[in-house]
Amino acid sequence: MAKFDYIENPHRRYNPLNGEWILVSPHRSKRPWQGQVEKVIEEKRPEYDPSCYLCPGNERVGGEKNPDYEDVYSFQNDFSALLQDTPEGEFSDGELFKAQSESGICKVICFSPNHSLTVPEMKVENIRKVVDLWCKEYQELGEKEEIGYVQIFENKGAIMGCSNPHPHGQIWASKLVPLEPSKESENQLVYYKKHGRTMLSDYLQSELEKKERILVENNSFVALVPFWAVWPFESMIISKRAVSNLLELTDEERTDLADIYKKLTIMYDNLFEVSFAYSAGLHQAPTDGEEHPEWHLHMHFYPPLLRSASVKKFMVGYEMLGTPQRDITAEGAAKRLRELSKTHYKSR
Amino acid sequence: MAKFDYIENPHRRYNPLNGEWILVSPHRSKRPWQGQVEKVIEEKRPEYDPSCYLCPGNERVGGEKNPDYEDVYSFQNDFSALLQDTPEGEFSDGELFKAQSESGICKVICFSPNHSLTVPEMKVENIRKVVDLWCKEYQELGEKEEIGYVQIFENKGAIMGCSNPHPHGQIWASKLVPLEPSKESENQLVYYKKHGRTMLSDYLQSELEKKERILVENNSFVALVPFWAVWPFESMIISKRAVSNLLELTDEERTDLADIYKKLTIMYDNLFEVSFAYSAGLHQAPTDGEEHPEWHLHMHFYPPLLRSASVKKFMVGYEMLGTPQRDITAEGAAKRLRELSKTHYKSR
Ligand SMILES: O=P(O)(O)O[C@H]1O[C@H](CO)[C@@H](O)[C@H](O)[C@H]1O
Ligand SMILES: O=P(O)(O)O[C@H]1O[C@H](CO)[C@@H](O)[C@H](O)[C@H]1O
Repeated sequence: MAKFDYIENPHRRYNPLNGEWILVSPHRSKRPWQGQVEKVIEEKRPEYDPSCYLCPGNERVGGEKNPDYEDVYSFQNDFSALLQDTPEGEFSDGELFKAQSESGICKVICFSPNHSLTVPEMKVENIRKVVDLWCKEYQELGEKEEIGYVQIFENKGAIMGCSNPHPHGQIWASKLVPLEPSKESENQLVYYKKHGRTMLSDYLQSELEKKERILVENNSFVALVPFWAVWPFESMIISKRAVSNLLELTDEERTDLADIYKKLTIMYDNLFEVSFAYSAGLHQAPTDGEEHPEWHLHMHFYPPLLRSASVKKFMVGYEMLGTPQRDITAEGAAKRLRELSKTHYKSR
Repeated sequence: MAKFDYIENPHRRYNPLNGEWILVSPHRSKRPWQGQVEKVIEEKRPEYDPSCYLCPGNERVGGEKNPDYEDVYSFQNDFSALLQDTPEGEFSDGELFKAQSESGICKVICFSPNHSLTVPEMKVENIRKVVDLWCKEYQELGEKEEIGYVQIFENKGAIMGCSNPHPHGQIWASKLVPLEPSKESENQLVYYKKHGRTMLSDYLQSELEKKERILVENNSFVALVPFWAVWPFESMIISKRAVSNLLELTDEERTDLADIYKKLTIMYDNLFEVSFAYSAGLHQAPTDGEEHPEWHLHMHFYPPLLRSASVKKFMVGYEMLGTPQRDITAEGAAKRLRELSKTHYKSR
C-alpha cells in the first residue's frame, strides 16, 4: 500500500490551541458546485453616506448623533448583546440545567470617517490609529472590576452577517472568559508550564523554518495559514515577541501590527479580486488582574470564500454534527495567497 | 438589585452533552436588521426533473445511471470526502504538528423518487422507509472492520449548502469518531458511570415534567428545544427508551421516529410558511465493536432562520472567536413552534 501523505490523502489535523481535530479532504476541491451562489455587489461607495449610522455627524438609532470624528471613533453598541446592569446570579437544577448570569459592555469602533474604505485600502498610519484605539479600549475596559475578557473583532462583508459596509469593528467585553479563549487559555497554560515558553513562540519558530505556510512578515509579526486551519483561506497573525496582550506592544510593534493587517487583507482582496469577507479578531490574555505569561497575542482571520467571489464554504451538516472539514490543504491555500501581487487590485 | 432571571437577563447556559457554554441575549431580538436578506425561492418543483442527478433513471456525474427506484435509494457519493483506500499512517513533528490518516465511506440517500417532495410533505409510511434504510446502512457500514462511526445527516435548503433540492440525506462513515460525537461520548460516559442511567433519560424526564421546551411527542420519541440550544429554533428528537443506536429500535419505534420527524418538520415549515432549511443528523453509539450503554440515540436539528423566511442568524465574529450566542430564549422559541398548526401550510 502507498505511504500516507498529508498533502494528498484525507486526514485529520490537530489544533493544539483549542485542542480539537479537523478533517482535511484534499482531493475534494475537484467537486463541481451547483449550490448557492453569493451575490457579488462591488458598487463604488461614496465617502459619506447620509443614511449610514456610522458616518460622522449622522444620527444613530438611539437618537444620538456621531461627532465629526476625524480618524477613529468608538461608542457603546445601541443593541448590545451584553449589558452592564445585569443582576448577578445562577440558575441550576441538577447537573443538566445550569445557567449563569453574564454581564458586559459592547462597543462599536469606526475605523475611519470615510465610508468608502476598507482596511486593505487604508493607509498604515490610519490603521495604526485603529490599533491605538484597540489598546485604549483593552486597557479601559480591562481595568474595570467586572470585565474579565475583552474580545475585539471585525465582521466584514454581508455574507459574514455585517449589516453596514462602513469600515468598523466591535468589542464585546464580558465578565467571564468566552468559550474559545478559555480553550486556548487552558492549552497554552499546559504548554507553558511544560516548556517555559509560549506555545505560539515554538509554533512560530517551526513555521518560519518550514516556510510552506507563511504568507507575509515584518519586523514584529508573521501572517500564516495555521497547520490546522479549517476555513479555506483561514490565517493567523502572530507576534514575533511573546507578548500576552496589546498593551505590551512597543510603538514600533503597534505600527507593524497595522502594517501586517493591511498586507494580509490586500492578499485576501487580490485572491478573487473582490472585497474579501471575513470575521477576524484578537485573542489575548484575560483581564482578570492576573499575570498571563502563557498567553501569546494573535489575531485569527476566518474568511468563508472557497472557489471564487461567489462560492463559499458551507460549514453545515457533517461540520456541525461531526468534524469541521476543509477541501483544500493549508499548504495549497498559503501558496496561492503568497504568490499574489502585493499591490491592491483596485490601485493597479 | 433585581434578581437574576434567565428569561430576561443575558446569561450563559451549559450544554452537558458537549460540555460547552453558550451565550443568551434575550433582549437582543429587538435589534433591527439591515444586513443580508436571503432569496426565498418557493417555486413548485416537478415530480421528475430530467436534469436532476438524484431522480430515478438519470445519469450521475460519474456516468453511472440511477435505477428506477420506487421508494428510497442509496449509493456511494461521487465526490466522497472520505475514501476507502487511504493508506494508514500518521505525521507528527513535535506536539504542534499532528496529522492522522482518515478513511471512510460517503453515501447519498434519496428519500423518495419524487423530486418535488420534502420530509414534512412525505407520508409517514414513506419516511419509515428512510428510517429502515438508515438502519440497514448503520448496520452494514458499522459491521466493517474499518468503520468506527456512522454519521447520518441531512442538509436541507440552499442556505444550508445543499446543492440539490431532491429530498436526500448523506452518510459519512469514518474510521475515527468525529469531534462532536466524541465530546458527547465522553460526557455521556461520565454521567452513566455516576448514575447508572443515560444522561438523556434523566434530561428527558425533567423536560417532560417542566413542559416549557417540549414541542411534540408520540409513544416513543419527544421533540424539544434543548435548554442549551444555540441556533434560534434548534431542536432535538430524543428516544423515550434508552437505546444506544438505531438497531435497537422496535418496529413500532421505527415508525414513531418517522412520525416525529414529519411532525417536527411540519412545525418548522409552518413557522415562516416556507420550506425550512436545516442541517439535521443522528447521534448514536460508535461502531467500534464495544457495547455503549452510555449512548442515548438522538437527532439534532440546526436551522439557521431567525426572524423570517429571509433573515437568518449569522454565527460569525463573536460566535467564532468568543462564544456561540443566541438572541431569543429556548423557551420562547419552543412556545412559538408548539403553538403552530399541526397541518402543513401547503395542505391547509
Ligand atoms: O456534500 P454536499 O451536499 O455537496 O456539500 C455540503 O455538505 C457537506 C457535508 O455537510 C459540506 O462539507 C459542504 O460544505 C456542503 O456544501
Ligand atoms: O452586531 P451585528 O453586526 O449587528 O451582528 C453581527 O455580529 C454579531 C457578533 O458577531 C453576531 O452575533 C450577529 O449574528 C451578526 O449578524
